[in-house]
Amino acid sequence: MLIGAIDGGGTKVLTAVMTGSGEVLARRQRSIPTADHRAYFAQGAEMLGECAAEAGVRLAELAGVGASLPAMTDGRDRVLGSPSAGWGEFTVRPLLVPALGMGTERVFIENDVNACALAELRFAHGGDNFIWMTVSTGIGGAVVADGRLVRGAGFCAGEIGHVKVEFATPRACGCGGCGCLEAHASGTAIGRLARAAGLGDADAKRVEQLARKGDPAAATVLAQAGRYIGRALAMTSNVLNPERVYIGGGVAHALDLLLPSIREEFERGALPQCRNVVIEQTRLGYEAALFGAAAVCLDGLAGKGC
Amino acid sequence: MLIGAIDGGGTKVLTAVMTGSGEVLARRQRSIPTADHRAYFAQGAEMLGECAAEAGVRLAELAGVGASLPAMTDGRDRVLGSPSAGWGEFTVRPLLVPALGMGTERVFIENDVNACALAELRFAHGGDNFIWMTVSTGIGGAVVADGRLVRGAGFCAGEIGHVKVEFATPRACGCGGCGCLEAHASGTAIGRLARAAGLGDADAKRVEQLARKGDPAAATVLAQAGRYIGRALAMTSNVLNPERVYIGGGVAHALDLLLPSIREEFERGALPQCRNVVIEQTRLGYEAALFGAAAVCLDGLAGKGC
Repeated sequence: MLIGAIDGGGTKVLTAVMTGSGEVLARRQRSIPTADHRAYFAQGAEMLGECAAEAGVRLAELAGVGASLPAMTDGRDRVLGSPSAGWGEFTVRPLLVPALGMGTERVFIENDVNACALAELRFAHGGDNFIWMTVSTGIGGAVVADGRLVRGAGFCAGEIGHVKVEFATPRACGCGGCGCLEAHASGTAIGRLARAAGLGDADAKRVEQLARKGDPAAATVLAQAGRYIGRALAMTSNVLNPERVYIGGGVAHALDLLLPSIREEFERGALPQCRNVVIEQTRLGYEAALFGAAAVCLDGLAGKGC
Repeated sequence: MLIGAIDGGGTKVLTAVMTGSGEVLARRQRSIPTADHRAYFAQGAEMLGECAAEAGVRLAELAGVGASLPAMTDGRDRVLGSPSAGWGEFTVRPLLVPALGMGTERVFIENDVNACALAELRFAHGGDNFIWMTVSTGIGGAVVADGRLVRGAGFCAGEIGHVKVEFATPRACGCGGCGCLEAHASGTAIGRLARAAGLGDADAKRVEQLARKGDPAAATVLAQAGRYIGRALAMTSNVLNPERVYIGGGVAHALDLLLPSIREEFERGALPQCRNVVIEQTRLGYEAALFGAAAVCLDGLAGKGC
């Protein structure tokens, strides 16, 4: 069985044709602006067509297609909105199905971080109880409890980036709130902490490099961000009692540097019986959301979708 | 079908023989100290025997028995510990089965707050996504996501009472941590706030009475506790996106007085898309955990147990 995967990011789109066990036969990557969502999906379908041609099949011969999107979705067909992509509400299948030439019931979509969690479940034996957290420009999250993705009443569960972690000196967050984890520990926040620490225009990646070279100010910045992450994970763990936390996104590369302060604050905040949690980088790597799209497709075809 | 329910509290035990739809045919209530857990369960079984006699059946004729306990459990047969009851680890069936004279596979146990959540699901049409929170001497919680009780990797999910809500002036909590919701908004905490506010030895119930009579200091104490509850519920809602929060326990009687400050802080902390949550008193009333024990039994008999 061959399937199609579309990882629709905020600035780039990855597509692949894969086997049912996650082996990639062909892939494409291209920068596509999100502003015009019709053009965005049309180009995604075109890229997937190129992958199919390279793999020696027609698009319509794929068993199905999954798409992971930088948006809230209903886990079926409807995008509910995306502040980062500038999207309102729309349905995805009418935009993809004609270009793909396959039955509408074989096309599936999901929020990108939820998709990563589904990939962790399917391809990386992630366990039955875990939190998936992506730390990048923003912070997103997904929850798997007792082997199932938790979607919530309005399909918006997993927003660990907006758990409040600072009340004394809270920073304004893009969500309209104050003191959110995202406002204090995302890649963007790390860049801001770096400026405040006299590190100039260093972004999160540069802060990581400086810390690896022994720069004490850079190390302090990462420790600060790590404490906030540990605080949010402790709160989440007391409520969900997971066994693992998987961290993805660009800032995950610095996890070894963040981990001492994450763990210190985590141990302080988590109940003794909820403290036995492994916090590690996802093994899905850079293409987590691409495997996510594949997992969404395979779950959908198996009737395990929402 | 008749079943037996044992609500094992920290100071009192309630038992009942019920129909499968939750109609109570006979009930008993007695104060039983928890210290000797063998005697505790033996007396519980004896009380249930009296209920059965009153209902005109023998214990062995009951389809099954469920027990809700003030303890962490594995949702099957094992108590994992209870600081409040002074219990370590032990298995429950050997203590109950001989006295009940029924097959071991027909006896089921569960943590009391989890049991309340299961009762809300079964008997009160509680919806598929909710938080159940008991505010009493301490604060306990349970999570239902997509129609299922979330137990967590170590069976300790739902500990919303130990979410950290105060970092500037955190109070020590019984769990060993600081700044937990339980330390700032439980019945015990309300009593302490009352003393600090010059209300003498008023307990939570007295604070409620004073607030209802227009005492401004009592109203301030409740508003303070309410804000902490709202803060913890906002964090939990961002992660789980529930549609409802059910409040039980003695302090739930004051929910109308607490609600304005709960909602104010909740709206401040919850994401717009996670804010559409009804916060209300459980409709299960004083006997929530007794119905919980019945739900545990019925779920267990239906093979829906852990």
